[in-house]
Amino acid sequence: MNRIERVIKELMQNDLTQMIVSETIAIRYLTGVSVYPGERLFALLLREDGNHVFFCNRLFFMPEVPYEIVWYNDGEDVISEMVKYLDVSKPVGIDKEWPAKFLIPLIESNSKITAKLAGDCVDNVRAIKDEEEIEKMRIASRINDEVIMNAMNYIKTGMTEKEVAAFVDAEYLRLGADGNSFGTDVSFGDDAADPHHMTGDRVLKDNELVLIDMGCIKDGYCSDMTRTFFNGSVSDEEKHVYNIVRQANEYAESIIKPGIRLSDIDKAARKIISDAGYGEYFTHRLGHFIGQTVHEKGDVSSFNDNLTKEGMIFSIEPGIYLPGKLGVRIEDLVLVTADGCEVLNKVSKDIRII
Amino acid sequence: MNRIERVIKELMQNDLTQMIVSETIAIRYLTGVSVYPGERLFALLLREDGNHVFFCNRLFFMPEVPYEIVWYNDGEDVISEMVKYLDVSKPVGIDKEWPAKFLIPLIESNSKITAKLAGDCVDNVRAIKDEEEIEKMRIASRINDEVIMNAMNYIKTGMTEKEVAAFVDAEYLRLGADGNSFGTDVSFGDDAADPHHMTGDRVLKDNELVLIDMGCIKDGYCSDMTRTFFNGSVSDEEKHVYNIVRQANEYAESIIKPGIRLSDIDKAARKIISDAGYGEYFTHRLGHFIGQTVHEKGDVSSFNDNLTKEGMIFSIEPGIYLPGKLGVRIEDLVLVTADGCEVLNKVSKDIRII
Repeated sequence: MNRIERVIKELMQNDLTQMIVSETIAIRYLTGVSVYPGERLFALLLREDGNHVFFCNRLFFMPEVPYEIVWYNDGEDVISEMVKYLDVSKPVGIDKEWPAKFLIPLIESNSKITAKLAGDCVDNVRAIKDEEEIEKMRIASRINDEVIMNAMNYIKTGMTEKEVAAFVDAEYLRLGADGNSFGTDVSFGDDAADPHHMTGDRVLKDNELVLIDMGCIKDGYCSDMTRTFFNGSVSDEEKHVYNIVRQANEYAESIIKPGIRLSDIDKAARKIISDAGYGEYFTHRLGHFIGQTVHEKGDVSSFNDNLTKEGMIFSIEPGIYLPGKLGVRIEDLVLVTADGCEVLNKVSKDIRII
Repeated sequence: MNRIERVIKELMQNDLTQMIVSETIAIRYLTGVSVYPGERLFALLLREDGNHVFFCNRLFFMPEVPYEIVWYNDGEDVISEMVKYLDVSKPVGIDKEWPAKFLIPLIESNSKITAKLAGDCVDNVRAIKDEEEIEKMRIASRINDEVIMNAMNYIKTGMTEKEVAAFVDAEYLRLGADGNSFGTDVSFGDDAADPHHMTGDRVLKDNELVLIDMGCIKDGYCSDMTRTFFNGSVSDEEKHVYNIVRQANEYAESIIKPGIRLSDIDKAARKIISDAGYGEYFTHRLGHFIGQTVHEKGDVSSFNDNLTKEGMIFSIEPGIYLPGKLGVRIEDLVLVTADGCEVLNKVSKDIRII
C-alpha cells in the first residue's frame, strides 16, 4: 500500500471520505511535490475514490502529477473553487495546522460543511518510517554525532553560548547537512536549569557544565540529540545527577520494543528519577516523535497510551533541572525495531570532562 | 492610545467584542510577553471591557502581567476552559493563523459559537510602525546593507550558491543580528530566472550574474533586500533588463507618500516594465509589508486598493525573469513618511561588476 492509500485507510476508519491536506511536508511526503507557499493557500484534497486534487497558486512550480491541479491567481477566490470539489453532505477532514484564514472562509462558504479534525490520519502514517526514511534519519544522526564531538573539542573557557551555537551551525553545513532542524540550544552552568533556555551571551567559566541540544536536517529528515558535559571538572552533585539521568535514559532505551505503551516508557524513566528524589525536577515529557520535522505528532509521555510499532522513531530525553544550580539532559533518537530498538546516536554517554 | 486599545477599536469597528489572538509575535507586540509554545496552545483573549485573559501551558514562563492567566497542563482540556471566558452569544474574533487543531475543537465545544476571521484587526495596527519600531527597522536594514557590500567583495568564480549564502548568514551573526529573517536566496545566471529558486550547489562561472535576496532579524525586526550584480562582465541584454528594473524600482519609490493606493504603486512600476516589452516576465506583486516577520499582512499589488499611511513599511521589488537566460530583481524597504518615503536600504543601484 502506498502512502496515500494508507492515509485513505485511516480516513475510512474514521468515517471520513475526504480530507484537505495542507502541511507542505505532508504533501511532499504523500506525493513528492515540494511547494513552499508562504502565506498562500496550497492544498491536496484526498478523496476516497482516488480522484485527488491539488490547489496551487500560479506563482509556484508544480511537477507533473497524476492528479487534477486547480490553479488560481492572487485575488481569486480559491476557497469557492475548492468547495465545488467537496461532497458537502459528508464531513470534511481538515489537516491539523490549516489556519483560520482558510478554514473560516471555507466554513462560511456553505452552511452544510462540517469540518472534522483529521490530522491524525496523516500523522499516524507518517509515524511509521519506511526503509528509505530510516536510512535518512540514520545519516542525519550520524552528522549530529560528528558535530557534537567536534564541538566538545572546540569549546574553551571564555567562549559565549552563541559562539558555540554558531560553531555547531557552521559544522552542520560543512558536513553536508542542509541546515538546523531547530535553533541550537547551548546552556552553560545554571542556565541549563531552564529546559527552555535561549542561547545567549553568557561566557563559559572554568568548572561549569555545558548542555547542548542540537539537530540538523539532511535530505528532508531531522536529527536531535542532547549531551551534557563538563569544562575542567565535575562536582560530586553534578556527577550524582548525571548518573541518575543517564540511568533513566539507558533503562528507557533498554525496554523499548514493539507493542508497549509509550506512557510506560515515560513512566519507567520517571520512576528512576523519582526514586532518586528528583521527580519534581524532571519537568517535561520523556520524548517526542521526529522525522521530517523535529516535533512530529506523538509523544512519549504519561498522556499517550498508544502502543509502539516497528518503524517509529522518537527521542528519549530525561533531564533533571535544579534551578539556580545545574541542569542535565541526555537525549538520543531511537528506532523501534522488530525485537527492540536501535539507538541512532552513538556518542558515548560516559561522563566527559573537556 | 496603546496598541491593545488600537486593536479593540478595530474590533468594535467590525462589530466584534472579543478576539482570540494567537500569533506569538502579535502577543509580544501587544503585551511584551514572549512565549514560544511550539505545538501547544498559547493565546491572549482580548475583551472589549479590558478584562483580557492569557491561556498558557505550565511548561512556559510568563512575566507578571496585568491580566488573568489561565494555566493548563499537558493532557488538560484548555479549550473547554477557554469557552468559559467567551460570550458565546456574540461572534468570536479569531486570529488568522490559529490552526484547525484548536479552532475545530472550539467550534465543536459549543454549538452557539460563531468564529469570525479577525486577523486584520491586529494586522492593521501592526502595519503602522511607531518610532521605536522604525528605528529598529533602520538598524536591521543597515546591517543588511553592510553584509551585501561584504558579500560583493567576497564572491569569486568557483564558489557555490550555498557557500555564498553561508557567508551572508555568518556575517549577520558577526555584525550582531540575531539571525536570518528568511533563508538567504543566492541565484547564479539563469537560476535567477526562477523567483522562487532554492539556493543550491551551482558553481559561479565567469561572466554570470548573481542575484541575492537576503534579510536579517535584529531586536525582533526584519530587513529584506535584493541586489543583482555581475561577475566579470555584463552583457548588453543584462544591462538593458537591469536598467528597466532599476527604473521601475526608482520610479515606484519616487511616487510613494501617504494617501495613495498601494495598487497604484504596483501599477506604476508594472507599466514601466510592460512598456519596455517585459510585462509578462514580471510575474509577482511589487512588494509586501514587513516588520516583526518578513511577510506581514498587506501587499503592494493590483489587488490591494488600500491607501498608504505614514508609518507603513513595505518592500519595492520589481523583477524581470527570462527563463533559461537571466533574472534581475532590485528590492528595497521603504518607510512612508509625512510627505514622501524614506528608502531604508542605501546600497547603490548602479550596475556593479565584481
